[in-house]
Amino acid sequence: MKKLINAPDDVVTEALHGMAAAHPDLLTVHFDPTYVIRADGVPDGKVALLSGGGSGHEPMHNGFVGQGMLDGACPGEVFTSPTPDQMQAATEALDAGAGVLHIVKNYTGDVMNFEMAAELAEASEVEVQSVVVNDDVAVEDSTYTAGRRGVGGTVLIEKICGAAADRGHTLDEVADLARRCNAEVRSMGMALTSCTVPTAGEPTFDLGEDEMEIGIGIHGEPGRQRMAVEPADQVVERLMEPILSDLPFKDGDDVLLFVNSMGGTPLIEVYLAYRKAQEIAEQHGLRVVRNLVGPYITSLEMAGLSITMLRMDDDLVDLWDAPVHTPALRWGV
Amino acid sequence: MKKLINAPDDVVTEALHGMAAAHPDLLTVHFDPTYVIRADGVPDGKVALLSGGGSGHEPMHNGFVGQGMLDGACPGEVFTSPTPDQMQAATEALDAGAGVLHIVKNYTGDVMNFEMAAELAEASEVEVQSVVVNDDVAVEDSTYTAGRRGVGGTVLIEKICGAAADRGHTLDEVADLARRCNAEVRSMGMALTSCTVPTAGEPTFDLGEDEMEIGIGIHGEPGRQRMAVEPADQVVERLMEPILSDLPFKDGDDVLLFVNSMGGTPLIEVYLAYRKAQEIAEQHGLRVVRNLVGPYITSLEMAGLSITMLRMDDDLVDLWDAPVHTPALRWGV
Repeated sequence: MKKLINAPDDVVTEALHGMAAAHPDLLTVHFDPTYVIRADGVPDGKVALLSGGGSGHEPMHNGFVGQGMLDGACPGEVFTSPTPDQMQAATEALDAGAGVLHIVKNYTGDVMNFEMAAELAEASEVEVQSVVVNDDVAVEDSTYTAGRRGVGGTVLIEKICGAAADRGHTLDEVADLARRCNAEVRSMGMALTSCTVPTAGEPTFDLGEDEMEIGIGIHGEPGRQRMAVEPADQVVERLMEPILSDLPFKDGDDVLLFVNSMGGTPLIEVYLAYRKAQEIAEQHGLRVVRNLVGPYITSLEMAGLSITMLRMDDDLVDLWDAPVHTPALRWGV
Repeated sequence: MKKLINAPDDVVTEALHGMAAAHPDLLTVHFDPTYVIRADGVPDGKVALLSGGGSGHEPMHNGFVGQGMLDGACPGEVFTSPTPDQMQAATEALDAGAGVLHIVKNYTGDVMNFEMAAELAEASEVEVQSVVVNDDVAVEDSTYTAGRRGVGGTVLIEKICGAAADRGHTLDEVADLARRCNAEVRSMGMALTSCTVPTAGEPTFDLGEDEMEIGIGIHGEPGRQRMAVEPADQVVERLMEPILSDLPFKDGDDVLLFVNSMGGTPLIEVYLAYRKAQEIAEQHGLRVVRNLVGPYITSLEMAGLSITMLRMDDDLVDLWDAPVHTPALRWGV
């Protein structure tokens, strides 16, 4: 696998320098320990939102730092949890007197390190709440996870909670909102190809020329089933059915439908899949009131996609529509 | 090459149905002949902007239809020019009394068909002007092109001219602006891998496991040089040098720097490359006053990137910053 990189060990640092150079109006990157925070500072008295996790899923999370979404993000090495000192430093830097919400995807390292960082920050008198996102219906327990993995729902929760924090909601309120969203969101992914971690230099897993993996994790963790590649419409059905039945989504529900590229899948294929996903949702009696289509939580150059559905109500629609200004999501500004 | 598609012949149509389903507020898709127009209609007396070309470069051009950018786009089959009847129908549908500007990338089929469509539309009393974009410095003449190819500069011209049309500039003024931008913009691309046209089912070209192609075209047309893969910083130098010397960009120039993913290159690598591109621009005495980073003119799943630089002045910055609301570019709305 060829990559456009210099030394494999420098990929994350050099990409962060690139983000800082491209978006000085939106974000500032600190090194040693490494974290990204919004350039304009957290307004006094606003709850701060911090997320983070292994790199390689860009634009998540650094690309969501800015007004109306995350106040900060801690990038680890590729597919590797950031360390507690990164999270502690970011938490303390972000606190504007109203506390800091940690939005944590459910991977063992992330959960453990964010817990440790929360304890360290609380020792410095920063109030912290943590919400663990675990929206992936594919499998219980996985290579790096006890319980369900956190995937695409994270993007939606970061946007919606960012808007609530902007409106002056308290730490408890924003944390409750994040938990409520997590309870109402379900996801599942699939892959046509593996990806290659730069420092590993070899594909994370092997898939035959005519195979796909249904229920793949965002680090290439095994899913439910490895099988022959099928037409896209059948693939979308294989993802939508478990999502629909798990919550379950019910006739008359309003939903946000998010069809995500794993990175290597062309946008033309993502829209083709969106078409079928919306059709299935509507056949199920759902009303797709908002959507998101494109590469937002990726796995390097992995070809594949994931589908996420969040049950919406008027409050959530209003928070979703609120202004956001980050490198990857922007409207109303 | 595995793809998330149904029948190869249906890819473009099904993806267009997906775009229509995802963005009913922004665009409307017509079939037979096929074209995409903004959903809210062209305001009376506004110059309309129409572009188009082969599909497979998404989000270009359909993803740029909406307020403040294109009023319409004609998608051909993958890597295949749209036909004159598509362009004629779109031109006539878009005319709001102030004429229609055709923004045409310099590929023989596109140029010929847009010329024919312009004649047909003019016979129906629609005033048309055409601007041919040819910003690729890599090669003179190419597989589908006499002269230079039109690439990333097209995205910038569509945004800037869309803003000018929104402000009530006349057809002549918007066409002049497009030609002025085309004279001030230069691009060059490279590829690590080929891409596969769905109906062909096989890679468009072959590249060895340790090879890259410098100066690649967006349909995989040969570039300047095939050579061993180098570190990203050297690759960026190989693209920046011809861009800088061709215009030439001079000490003290303001520029917009656009680093574009060909599709299959992860965003982390695009930002890593952006870092080096900006560094080189600044070493050259340029001031990077605006930028764009991400997949905007792609070649299906091709891994690689292209760099585009446009010399800016205050007017162009002002037009770039004007509100835009399309599926792929959005701000100020």
